Amino acid sequence: MARPDDRATDQLRPVTIQRGWLDHAEGSVLIEFGGTRVLCAASVQDSVPRWRRDSGLGWVTAEYAMLPRATNTRNDRESVKGRLGGRTHEISRLIGRSLRAAIDFKALGENTVQLDCDVLQADGGTRTAAITGAYVALADAVTWMREKGWVKGDPFITSVAAISVGVVDGQPRLDLCYEEDVAAETDMNVVCTGDGRFVEVQGTAEGQPFDRSELDALLDLAAGGCADLTRLQKEALAS
Amino acid sequence: MARPDDRATDQLRPVTIQRGWLDHAEGSVLIEFGGTRVLCAASVQDSVPRWRRDSGLGWVTAEYAMLPRATNTRNDRESVKGRLGGRTHEISRLIGRSLRAAIDFKALGENTVQLDCDVLQADGGTRTAAITGAYVALADAVTWMREKGWVKGDPFITSVAAISVGVVDGQPRLDLCYEEDVAAETDMNVVCTGDGRFVEVQGTAEGQPFDRSELDALLDLAAGGCADLTRLQKEALAS
Amino acid sequence: MARPDDRATDQLRPVTIQRGWLDHAEGSVLIEFGGTRVLCAASVQDSVPRWRRDSGLGWVTAEYAMLPRATNTRNDRESVKGRLGGRTHEISRLIGRSLRAAIDFKALGENTVQLDCDVLQADGGTRTAAITGAYVALADAVTWMREKGWVKGDPFITSVAAISVGVVDGQPRLDLCYEEDVAAETDMNVVCTGDGRFVEVQGTAEGQPFDRSELDALLDLAAGGCADLTRLQKEALAS
Amino acid sequence: MARPDDRATDQLRPVTIQRGWLDHAEGSVLIEFGGTRVLCAASVQDSVPRWRRDSGLGWVTAEYAMLPRATNTRNDRESVKGRLGGRTHEISRLIGRSLRAAIDFKALGENTVQLDCDVLQADGGTRTAAITGAYVALADAVTWMREKGWVKGDPFITSVAAISVGVVDGQPRLDLCYEEDVAAETDMNVVCTGDGRFVEVQGTAEGQPFDRSELDALLDLAAGGCADLTRLQKEALAS
Amino acid sequence: MARPDDRATDQLRPVTIQRGWLDHAEGSVLIEFGGTRVLCAASVQDSVPRWRRDSGLGWVTAEYAMLPRATNTRNDRESVKGRLGGRTHEISRLIGRSLRAAIDFKALGENTVQLDCDVLQADGGTRTAAITGAYVALADAVTWMREKGWVKGDPFITSVAAISVGVVDGQPRLDLCYEEDVAAETDMNVVCTGDGRFVEVQGTAEGQPFDRSELDALLDLAAGGCADLTRLQKEALAS
Amino acid sequence: MARPDDRATDQLRPVTIQRGWLDHAEGSVLIEFGGTRVLCAASVQDSVPRWRRDSGLGWVTAEYAMLPRATNTRNDRESVKGRLGGRTHEISRLIGRSLRAAIDFKALGENTVQLDCDVLQADGGTRTAAITGAYVALADAVTWMREKGWVKGDPFITSVAAISVGVVDGQPRLDLCYEEDVAAETDMNVVCTGDGRFVEVQGTAEGQPFDRSELDALLDLAAGGCADLTRLQKEALAS
Repeated sequence: MARPDDRATDQLRPVTIQRGWLDHAEGSVLIEFGGTRVLCAASVQDSVPRWRRDSGLGWVTAEYAMLPRATNTRNDRESVKGRLGGRTHEISRLIGRSLRAAIDFKALGENTVQLDCDVLQADGGTRTAAITGAYVALADAVTWMREKGWVKGDPFITSVAAISVGVVDGQPRLDLCYEEDVAAETDMNVVCTGDGRFVEVQGTAEGQPFDRSELDALLDLAAGGCADLTRLQKEALAS
Repeated sequence: MARPDDRATDQLRPVTIQRGWLDHAEGSVLIEFGGTRVLCAASVQDSVPRWRRDSGLGWVTAEYAMLPRATNTRNDRESVKGRLGGRTHEISRLIGRSLRAAIDFKALGENTVQLDCDVLQADGGTRTAAITGAYVALADAVTWMREKGWVKGDPFITSVAAISVGVVDGQPRLDLCYEEDVAAETDMNVVCTGDGRFVEVQGTAEGQPFDRSELDALLDLAAGGCADLTRLQKEALAS
Repeated sequence: MARPDDRATDQLRPVTIQRGWLDHAEGSVLIEFGGTRVLCAASVQDSVPRWRRDSGLGWVTAEYAMLPRATNTRNDRESVKGRLGGRTHEISRLIGRSLRAAIDFKALGENTVQLDCDVLQADGGTRTAAITGAYVALADAVTWMREKGWVKGDPFITSVAAISVGVVDGQPRLDLCYEEDVAAETDMNVVCTGDGRFVEVQGTAEGQPFDRSELDALLDLAAGGCADLTRLQKEALAS
Repeated sequence: MARPDDRATDQLRPVTIQRGWLDHAEGSVLIEFGGTRVLCAASVQDSVPRWRRDSGLGWVTAEYAMLPRATNTRNDRESVKGRLGGRTHEISRLIGRSLRAAIDFKALGENTVQLDCDVLQADGGTRTAAITGAYVALADAVTWMREKGWVKGDPFITSVAAISVGVVDGQPRLDLCYEEDVAAETDMNVVCTGDGRFVEVQGTAEGQPFDRSELDALLDLAAGGCADLTRLQKEALAS
Repeated sequence: MARPDDRATDQLRPVTIQRGWLDHAEGSVLIEFGGTRVLCAASVQDSVPRWRRDSGLGWVTAEYAMLPRATNTRNDRESVKGRLGGRTHEISRLIGRSLRAAIDFKALGENTVQLDCDVLQADGGTRTAAITGAYVALADAVTWMREKGWVKGDPFITSVAAISVGVVDGQPRLDLCYEEDVAAETDMNVVCTGDGRFVEVQGTAEGQPFDRSELDALLDLAAGGCADLTRLQKEALAS
Repeated sequence: MARPDDRATDQLRPVTIQRGWLDHAEGSVLIEFGGTRVLCAASVQDSVPRWRRDSGLGWVTAEYAMLPRATNTRNDRESVKGRLGGRTHEISRLIGRSLRAAIDFKALGENTVQLDCDVLQADGGTRTAAITGAYVALADAVTWMREKGWVKGDPFITSVAAISVGVVDGQPRLDLCYEEDVAAETDMNVVCTGDGRFVEVQGTAEGQPFDRSELDALLDLAAGGCADLTRLQKEALAS
């Protein structure tokens, strides 16, 4: 069964990472995973939230949102509805946790980086594109802080990247587009560090429950995809 | 390194499942995993949400909440704050998805079961206790519906149970209590069907990222724990 | 006309008061008035709200809520609706005022006790059960504070207990169950001190307005019921 | 101990009732109890709320609010805060219940009257002025409906009026102004029908609990005050 | 084409300005433009908002609201809906900006005046009546502050007044009543200083776009109307 | 006094209009006025809001929002705050009104176009860029509807474009950038039709009130700027 865009089962969609897409943000990236397009902005503050003060430790946090017409049919704005939906909350928390895994908060000092990931267009994998792009924006923001002398050493323990995997038509596949995502029996989002360890594994049976061998196959695919993305992040940061 | 309550690493805390704890609900269970105590109530309706009408299919949904003094220090009520927190949203969605994996919606017919999981006391593992107890409450509600003739066949494809696992002091452990939970390097919640397949796998590196061998060890522990819980659910339903 | 459970018109339903129902709260009580079951938790803080600071005076406040399936048909959660209903507000305020009548705030010092009254099951009289149980939880919390040395003397001026009364089928009755409550022409909630004086009298004509003689009969019944509850509170605290 | 305005203990403040204060409302009254000034508007609809449809019965409901500078110091608007306070909720419910006691809903037919009571200036007794004025506005709105042929017979069972009473300096007094209200040991609001029966009795010990004899004295004062107000309502409606 | 009330096209409706309508507010005005009736209250504080502290500068701000039955059909309360509408926001901001144009904040010192403009009855032009009345209330509040010694010099640079103009039936008209307002092709609100300069010009094509000559005619009318209002404000303040 | 970017006082910043920036929306434009970058998406529906049904008339509405890091310092999200700010409300309403002036609703038929204008980067003039871009997105959406046969004739009466003007350092200038906007004494937004008439004129004195001659100079500048934008819109739609 061929994929909608004829990719190999272990092949990423075309990935582009444009740094410096915004003039004001200390770090900003427009990242594309195929038709998915996410604007990631990093904003720095030389202070930390109240509950973290006088700890000597920094903080990284994230917010995720989608423009109303990012998708095929328009979604009402959460600002107009007056409340955040559960999905938004959940993904914002996931992005924040994932990026925090890359950071030594002692080395960051009492500074905060706020990551805003706004989906301009959605075609599956928005949360994984957001994490992958937010890492690059965070890296640029940290460079900005080191240049200003806010941060002395290197606060990065590792890098992080994320990819979705899933079982479609009984076949494990990497980096599902929207059409595959809605058809998937199992859907998993995996966040890895640059050295191939896991930060988050979130697998959900959408249709049939999955057994251990399917889980293993998906983890293998995801580890490979994250390694590819780690390489692309490095290239983007080197350019 | 001994566990706080001297359990073996693959041993559950004492589990009690009291059915019929409420007079009015069509199914109700007070479930305890050690000091964690969750009241699960199943409410039935002979209709489905608007978006599901005339589909011939039923629906199962869930809401999770915690009493303000379930924990060691009091938490403000979300009703008073006027908005649900991200954690509440996330767990409610997890419980709903997990229970839906057990149900054949065609066999359920156009009926809805709403599961309310209220944590009266929290000592780690509240979401897994909620899923495990909600399954029993759902089973009782389905029996009620079959007795009333609302449902003809058996809508259960399988049962579901859930448990937390984690790496504490470098050691993979089953069913973390609160003290272990806050100390865990990795924390994973696993939902399994009665026949040992996976419905949800949600692993998070709290401290160090985890490698594949740790992940494998945690999955093994969780599968064993869920099998124990499946047996306890059967016993409770048989009594 | 016999009562649904064949009680005498001046007879309380079976009352049980279980202290220490929660492990963490400084005071906690599960109180039952027949089928009505309310969990009362007292949480202490060694500070007072901002508007009370540096007054040398303590504070006692309360919040009341009902689990969604406490009643015969499920009610939507106020946390999900995003706002507190008028009834919840009103009862929370009543409980707070009632308990404050028992306390000498100077003797309490600049400490706060927050009382959470959560109705696990409702069969009429939830607010009166909440007040009666909250007093016992408050007493245990004060004992805890005295043991810690937060409070030196005895901050209790008196005890408080509460009961509902009403006119059903033309007959004044004590402690209405739900079935009687919906049928009552007049419904009154009365809060008394341990020495038989009134803290709150809230009478409402649900159907016919009531005259002075009916009012007098209801007040007599309520005073007797509160005296019985005062005795049961003492027994519970002595055990 | 003389009262601030030298009134007798059983004497009302000057009461004025101006009908037709608004051009658009089907009934409208500007009522003054001394310095307390409440604008009561009655709006009619030839339909009832959804839960009341096809019952043949009408409905009366009320909302109470206070302008931000009705009081000595400015209060923030509830519309700006985004939520109604408990006090507002409580008084709105009280006004609605009180007025409904005057109406035969069958005779009203499937029509609704919405009563809006907005406090323009507050000097104690705003809720009782609101009830007393709302009755007159309701009477005018019913006349309007009868003239239009929406209502055939007379839907009034009785009239309603309300007054506050309290114990100040150990002395039971009628119709407390703000200065007396804040000094009161006991504060009671009483709603009576035109024939002297009780619709609501809400007594609260602000300082000392009160005994039965104080309660009796307050009820006597209130009954007298409501009789005076009933007469003033009649005069206003006759003019 | 005659106007509904036979006014000349450049004629204001009868204007009344009653000062001191409230006992508590430092300045208060009940202003009427024909059937439009707005209560303007000025509340003073001897402090400024946090973002303005230690600037040596004062602040003036405003809130606009409408009672539910100010209009021909009842509008739901924004406090009950839990959010301010766009129109309310917009007009509140307009009033605040307009009044601030009259004030030298240095001369006001670190004091704040809050202007509350509540529409008791609406017949077109509520925002312009609000601005015109609020100026008088502000003037009285400033006098109060000068008497108390909070303010030394004269903080008024100028006065402000506002009027609506519009094109109805192809004819430019001053001070539209509601009937004209809904029929207007173009609707403009203009705020002028006492010396005839412009503070705000807000013109909107409701039907046909307008050309420069229509715009000029409307501005001429508005300038004349504001001059009339300036004179009436002076008379009111002199009385 | 030279402008920050050395433009002539009557010169627009570089304007770019990219059509089809989104894959899913029926019309979409990324418009840039210098550093200001707004994504305008048009979404169509073959129905109208409830209050407009069975009128034979269509509807056009708009929502404006700004990404949190569009500006120099980050702004909190309105979705997280749970309420829309007054500025957002005001601009959304302005955009909707402006676009509706271009449309013959009878020719549009009972179809709705929703315009979403999201500011990705802000450097002054975001609302005018939004209106100018939204017109082009609306034109594309109308073409889409005509191709689908939803719309038969041409619903466009005219085109609309908008520009800001202001007095900076005593000098009237066209198309203010952020640096000029904060320094402006007077700030005006003008919306014109393609044939040079006015749809909206919103002028505000930020510092000094303005006189008629300044107003005239600003209107002249704005009319010229809108004519330039009209030409650029035509070119973009022709390409």
